[in-house]
Amino acid sequence: MGEAGDNGISTSGLVPLRRGRASVVKIPDHWFIVAESNELKSEPIERELFGTKLALFRDERGKAAALLDRCPHRNVPLSLGKTHRDGTIECAYHGWRFDGGGECRFIPTFSGACGQKGQRATSFAVREQDGFIWVYSTPMGDGVAPKTEPHVFAYKDKPGYSTVVQAVTAEGTLYSSIENALDVPHTAFLHHGLFRSKSRGITITAKIHRSRDRVEAEYVGEPRPEGVIGRILSPSGGIVTHYDRFILPSVAQVEYRIGSENHFRVDSVMTPVSDYVTRIYAVVSFRTHLPSRLIAPLIKPLALRVFQQDSEILKKQTETIHRFGGEHFTSTDVDVIGRHVWRLLRSAERGDLTDVDETLEVPLVV
Amino acid sequence: MGEAGDNGISTSGLVPLRRGRASVVKIPDHWFIVAESNELKSEPIERELFGTKLALFRDERGKAAALLDRCPHRNVPLSLGKTHRDGTIECAYHGWRFDGGGECRFIPTFSGACGQKGQRATSFAVREQDGFIWVYSTPMGDGVAPKTEPHVFAYKDKPGYSTVVQAVTAEGTLYSSIENALDVPHTAFLHHGLFRSKSRGITITAKIHRSRDRVEAEYVGEPRPEGVIGRILSPSGGIVTHYDRFILPSVAQVEYRIGSENHFRVDSVMTPVSDYVTRIYAVVSFRTHLPSRLIAPLIKPLALRVFQQDSEILKKQTETIHRFGGEHFTSTDVDVIGRHVWRLLRSAERGDLTDVDETLEVPLVV
Amino acid sequence: MGEAGDNGISTSGLVPLRRGRASVVKIPDHWFIVAESNELKSEPIERELFGTKLALFRDERGKAAALLDRCPHRNVPLSLGKTHRDGTIECAYHGWRFDGGGECRFIPTFSGACGQKGQRATSFAVREQDGFIWVYSTPMGDGVAPKTEPHVFAYKDKPGYSTVVQAVTAEGTLYSSIENALDVPHTAFLHHGLFRSKSRGITITAKIHRSRDRVEAEYVGEPRPEGVIGRILSPSGGIVTHYDRFILPSVAQVEYRIGSENHFRVDSVMTPVSDYVTRIYAVVSFRTHLPSRLIAPLIKPLALRVFQQDSEILKKQTETIHRFGGEHFTSTDVDVIGRHVWRLLRSAERGDLTDVDETLEVPLVV
Repeated sequence: MGEAGDNGISTSGLVPLRRGRASVVKIPDHWFIVAESNELKSEPIERELFGTKLALFRDERGKAAALLDRCPHRNVPLSLGKTHRDGTIECAYHGWRFDGGGECRFIPTFSGACGQKGQRATSFAVREQDGFIWVYSTPMGDGVAPKTEPHVFAYKDKPGYSTVVQAVTAEGTLYSSIENALDVPHTAFLHHGLFRSKSRGITITAKIHRSRDRVEAEYVGEPRPEGVIGRILSPSGGIVTHYDRFILPSVAQVEYRIGSENHFRVDSVMTPVSDYVTRIYAVVSFRTHLPSRLIAPLIKPLALRVFQQDSEILKKQTETIHRFGGEHFTSTDVDVIGRHVWRLLRSAERGDLTDVDETLEVPLVV
Repeated sequence: MGEAGDNGISTSGLVPLRRGRASVVKIPDHWFIVAESNELKSEPIERELFGTKLALFRDERGKAAALLDRCPHRNVPLSLGKTHRDGTIECAYHGWRFDGGGECRFIPTFSGACGQKGQRATSFAVREQDGFIWVYSTPMGDGVAPKTEPHVFAYKDKPGYSTVVQAVTAEGTLYSSIENALDVPHTAFLHHGLFRSKSRGITITAKIHRSRDRVEAEYVGEPRPEGVIGRILSPSGGIVTHYDRFILPSVAQVEYRIGSENHFRVDSVMTPVSDYVTRIYAVVSFRTHLPSRLIAPLIKPLALRVFQQDSEILKKQTETIHRFGGEHFTSTDVDVIGRHVWRLLRSAERGDLTDVDETLEVPLVV
Repeated sequence: MGEAGDNGISTSGLVPLRRGRASVVKIPDHWFIVAESNELKSEPIERELFGTKLALFRDERGKAAALLDRCPHRNVPLSLGKTHRDGTIECAYHGWRFDGGGECRFIPTFSGACGQKGQRATSFAVREQDGFIWVYSTPMGDGVAPKTEPHVFAYKDKPGYSTVVQAVTAEGTLYSSIENALDVPHTAFLHHGLFRSKSRGITITAKIHRSRDRVEAEYVGEPRPEGVIGRILSPSGGIVTHYDRFILPSVAQVEYRIGSENHFRVDSVMTPVSDYVTRIYAVVSFRTHLPSRLIAPLIKPLALRVFQQDSEILKKQTETIHRFGGEHFTSTDVDVIGRHVWRLLRSAERGDLTDVDETLEVPLVV
């Protein structure tokens, strides 16, 4: 397989490969979902965030905690252990016990006092809200306190709205998964018939608005989507309002209003499990002219079908990137949101977000 | 596992390992089979040559084309896409379309003109002949035109001859697969009983003739092979003429005449799929004193049995080479053809073939 | 996955990873078990020691031999071959034959004399004793002769004793496997109920005695183990004598006397198959107040259960070490034997064992 040499040129394979980078970021100081609340019961579980394994457990009062999944003694995963009745997690190998802050509380057979610095397990701040367990991506330590708060779901518990939650895993980078979730052109091809059919030749305008922690695309003049979903919701057409948003660190938000009664909002909160694996927690809130008990059962299978198609293509994209030594993308104006997402992700990685307030317009033929 | 260090010496494992190379070549400017014609139908397929993935498809008139299997837009494999009715291949992700020359012909939702340089897919020259699809190993570009022609099968459609085609895959380098196909001594051991039995103590002569693009071994004084095949073809013996040839870039040719009526020619055209995987397209043409409808059904199972034994040993050889950090071969005079094959492969890789006309003689005890 | 950069600091993942080493050693000039005698019959077999593959075979008189598992001709594993009636091993590919000393004795079709230097197979000294085939870890060559002898099992054939042999494989380093076999504290957790129950709060003393080629821990004041095993052997209690020993290069020895009649000795002779795989040959010799025909059938299932628990935890430890870029262990006084084992292993690797005679005392709460 072609591998780039020191000079960035490979002579292996049929083509000289320019060495490329991949769109991988590690974002400190932000909150990411690592589990749904009901996945963490009385026994510890193992999760992964930015390629780092974590042991999650609940103390004796049910409070969730997250430690690096490695006992400082002999490096066995703490998630193999048990929750002790004193609220600590007990290692399966030699029985060392740690509290939710990572402090060592007991070492079997040892007659001395435990709690020395080298005996600490690395710990992470945890929030449990909206049915999710969120972990802060910078480890706790002397004087460290979270600088941000987890994402809020604006319509999750709002009167008149129903909400469906669905989690799926994609084998793509965080960046590619976000771009995929917010990309309009691919829906007519990859998801042919579900959202959009092939072009009707109508030119609409995408208004791109950039600000400090987000980028938003408003689609002006968009006709009612032709696919199954549009037809059910709005058999007679109606004015369509459509926004796509990326909000740091990892929320892809899609919002549709069709006519005055139908409102859909999907917040896909992305967890970078590792460089090329992204877990997506999609929270779909909606209000329609039809009873929600008719709509709700349709959301999950439809979402799963779309996710399966996206997941398959992201996996193939990832394989191709690895095979050819990096990403070699080219873009046009209609890739409206990707470059701004990437700029935001890189800024968040470096911790140098800048104030910006800019609006751009791009024509799209749909 | 022992891995060679910077100084070429490893102290790991039980033995200091000398760092070795492996007989891997990449040959530009030559034709290789990537598929049998009937494998490429109306939908694109994926193939690999020298470790590089290709998308093969047929245009609206059935003409075969080969592109690098990576869409220049978001690097999804083009082979996942469809053939469009306008003769282009359409990417499965965003629907970009490319013609057989790699030119971008359409970008959905984009109101501008496509066809810019960065939007080109890398393309390769294709020939379809003798039931095979051949790809030229240097990509097409400004002013590039093939300098060579695909191999010709001299007896494939010749009156009086029948032909059987069989393709198999071996987990060995191109070099090792060629040497294996042309090596006489191993047949008595690895294929014991099929071609040759153990030695009868007869000394014959191998006349090695080297020229610019090939090396040929003629075996003079060889008795009729003792195995199953020889007995069926020539129950009463007869004069045997036997040539083994290697012809650049990758043809291993074995030719037998037994008595005046029996003539066999096997052209094994090798495709270097990747460094350690070789696909072998064997074209067996023959004329015997027996009706071909009796012989033809025997050829495939026999060839498959021989290939299976060879494939198994090449796989083990490859594993051992990886395990011990490279090839550490030693040769004797009876490895008559291997060193010349290797010299030709390296010359073809560097593009510096030289005129030579030399004959050597080597005794063999069979 | 977080990988340490050149400066030893990785910014990938959630935590900066200090680059760590792993406790891997290669020990020259010592004997290791590579097979049980009854595993090597008339056909060659393949074994691995310190990551190096060996071909074992018996000559025409049944004498065991070990060669590097690579034919010097075309690098096919010799273990694929056959034992020839002349006592040599014959390669499966071209039929080259080698004697137990690695000398090449025959090359088919070759009319010259074989036995040149490049045609030698690398050979290793072999001893067959106590039902095991032992291989010396430095290859034979001009003027090389073994400097040590294989381990002797003191109670294996002693009158009044019975012996059970059980071999298992653990996915851990030699060091971790030895420490695991000799570690007392983990038995109450990982093997809860089998040997020890949770603490009774009794403080005992571990007397650690270090000498040139070994380290011994004597446990003074230990009550009879509470688990199944202790209850069967000594229903009414009794004085317990307990020694744990590590003897170079790879013997973990556990010795128990309970009362005057019960004596158990387990010699776990470890074979470093590769860096992270260790084969353990456990030889359990015992004499009890109960008939050995009652005890013997219990030993194997019990040993297998304990080994399975240890093997599982060592595998998880190894995975975690790889995941976090090396071992980051912390120890307390109750890790009584590990650091001395490591020092001995490293000295044996470098060939600089030193005379030492030292005794240390450590309190343990059991």
